[in-house]
Order: sequence, then structure tokens, then C-alpha cells
Amino acid sequence: MTLSALPALSDIPEAVVPGVLRIENSDKDTTTPIIVDMLRSVYPHDQIFGDFCPVQAYIAAPPREVYEYLADTRSLEEWTYSLRGFVETEEPELWLAYDRLGDATEIYTRTVANPDAMTVDYHCAWDQGKHLWMIYLMRVVDAQVVLNKPGSVVLWNNCRHPFYDENPYPETAPPKRPVWVGDFWDMFSAGHQLEMDNLKAICEYRAAHGLPIKPEWMA
Amino acid sequence: MTLSALPALSDIPEAVVPGVLRIENSDKDTTTPIIVDMLRSVYPHDQIFGDFCPVQAYIAAPPREVYEYLADTRSLEEWTYSLRGFVETEEPELWLAYDRLGDATEIYTRTVANPDAMTVDYHCAWDQGKHLWMIYLMRVVDAQVVLNKPGSVVLWNNCRHPFYDENPYPETAPPKRPVWVGDFWDMFSAGHQLEMDNLKAICEYRAAHGLPIKPEWMA
Repeated sequence: MTLSALPALSDIPEAVVPGVLRIENSDKDTTTPIIVDMLRSVYPHDQIFGDFCPVQAYIAAPPREVYEYLADTRSLEEWTYSLRGFVETEEPELWLAYDRLGDATEIYTRTVANPDAMTVDYHCAWDQGKHLWMIYLMRVVDAQVVLNKPGSVVLWNNCRHPFYDENPYPETAPPKRPVWVGDFWDMFSAGHQLEMDNLKAICEYRAAHGLPIKPEWMA
Repeated sequence: MTLSALPALSDIPEAVVPGVLRIENSDKDTTTPIIVDMLRSVYPHDQIFGDFCPVQAYIAAPPREVYEYLADTRSLEEWTYSLRGFVETEEPELWLAYDRLGDATEIYTRTVANPDAMTVDYHCAWDQGKHLWMIYLMRVVDAQVVLNKPGSVVLWNNCRHPFYDENPYPETAPPKRPVWVGDFWDMFSAGHQLEMDNLKAICEYRAAHGLPIKPEWMA
């Protein structure tokens, strides 16, 4: 068997796509300095958190239970800094709450969760529930598989939707509200880290005290 | 309705967990300087890429097609820098290839994909296929939802499994191999960015030229 038995890129003339570096067209001696040149001792905030906002944590609590907790929209009442007063609207699975960062700001949330992949996506928006454009992408991973120890890894990411830069529905905002959610984008990395720390502390407290991760009041 | 209608943390004495910051116990004036103090103009490499390796990209190609492409293990033959010669082993869905970074190093891969969540996890290992501990966690997201434009967002993360620091199965390695996969952990952020750039370039080339994202040779 040869190492190139598969016809990789055979649909592309001469198998060359501009900008693609593969060991065939850029050997180790050529590529190593390219890689090393991409590495930095420090990275600017915008390079890391400009367009996406990745935050990760290990949590010493069972992954299936952490997933079930996150998949319940009401968990946001506990581990977020400022989302409070969740009530289900007349539209099934669409929840209304208040983001107390924005005074009397309403926030709408629909949670889309997949128990097999253990993804939990919070589709949210300030002020209105018709277009849920603030998407919190989360995923619970079994730490036994990825870190060789019991517990959970929680991955969280947000994408910089253009509406963060400009409110597309200003008519739905409370009069004279001085802030817009996108004003906080540059602080999301720290704010989400703070909330991830909350999630970790709450789940680990419950796990260590023999309490269900998803509390009984959510049952 | 009051803002605290739900009995958040009611299973916990006085609803206080050490280290948890919520607007009830840490108001905006108290919390803002905490958040600001977490922000930096630059972040050290290890803080960002020490325990996890998040990489993200926007790709101008349809998300369902990008997912289907990634979900086929053989796509790695195209967009990775050095994984070549994929053949299915006698164990169904377990593939053998060579990581040409490690000369004659075998790499085993089982791909676990979820079409609803569009997660694609490559469970891999150098040298042996019994314990697949190198887990590449990927996910395709519809950019229309998260960025308000057609295309895909690809999220990719790896967790620093302890075996990166020490090969747990040295007896399976080729004799006198001078490198171990974990030697490259500190370069993963750049190496994975390079490979993400490959993935983006290949998918965008195909999309722009009317070619199927998953090429016919994989059908």
C-alpha cells in the first residue's frame, strides 16, 4: 500500500488550492518556520476574542447531569450573572426573562439541546422574541474521554453577530435605555469566564454535597 | 410578577456557593472592576492554549455540505497537513492512516458525528487503535443563524489529555522514533489554524467552482 492511495483533491486541477499547505507541497522543513511564526508569547485581545468568544472549563460533576442541567433554560437563572425571572411565554419553549444588566430589559430564550451530542444552544435576543440572534453555543463533553478523569468539560462559544454592533430592532427597546447588549462584546470573554466559574462552582458544590446537579425545583 | 419568582439555588444553604458572583450578591458597581481586571490587552499563550486549543473559522460554503464532508474520515486526507493513506481496518469505522509528521507513525481514527447537532469528533491515537484518547472536537454551525450571512462557522477544540505529556503505550511506538505527538501540543494552536485555513480554502474553492464540497471520490 502506498501512502497516497486515496485520490485527495483529485477534483481540483493539479490538486492545488491557493493557500493550502500540505506535506506534499510544503515539507516539514518549510512548514516549521511558518508554524513557529504564527506562535506568540502573547496574543492581542482582538485576535483571540474579536470574532468569537471561546471559553472552556473542567467541572468535577457527571457530564450527563451537567448536560441535563444546562439543557433546562431555567438553569440560566442560577449560573448567569444577571438573567432573572424566567417564565415560559405562550409560544412553547420560548422563555421570557430580564437581563438585569440592562435594567428593565427583556430577554427571550429558546434552548435547543441535543442529548446525544450534548450540545446546548441558547438562542436569545434582547427586547423581542421573533429573531433570536444571540446564540450561546455550549457543549458538554465527558472528561473521562478527553482528560482521562471523571467529570465534565464544558465548551462555550459565541460568534460576533453583526447585530452586536447595531441594534436592528431599536423600536423594541425600552425608551432611553442607555446601553445595548453589543456594548459588552469586548467584555464577553471575562463575563462569560465569570459565568463559567459560577457554573463550575454550583455544579461542583452540588456534586460534592450529594445534591442533584439539576435541582429538584426544576423537576 | 417579581424578578425573583424562581427559587434559584434553593437547595443550597442561604443560596450562597463560594466563588459564585450573581447580581444579587455582587452588584454592577462591584462586579464591573472585577470584569475589567480580568481583561488584558494581551494574553499569554498558556492562558489561551494551555489546557484547551480553541480554533474557529467562517467558511463560505453550505453548512450541511461542510458537515457531511467533515463527517467522512477520509476528508482528513485532504485538509490535514500530514495524515495520509486512510484505509478502513477490520474493525468497522476504525480507520488506519499515517501521520507523516512522525515518519512511519500509524494513526487510528474513529469518527463520531451527529447530523442534528452537526458535531464531528475524531477519536484518534498514534500507534494503536485500542484506546483513542486524542479527541478532535469539531462542530459546524449555520452562519446564517450566528453571523447573519450564508455559510458555515466551524468550531474546533482539543483538550490537553495527560497522555500528551507522556506516551502511555510506548511499546506500540516504532523503534527509536524521536518524537511524540504531545511534543507538538504547544504548536497545536498554530498547526490547527493552518489546517483550519486548509479546510476553509478547500471548501471555498469547491463552493466557488460549483464542485460538491464532499468530492465524488468519497461517495
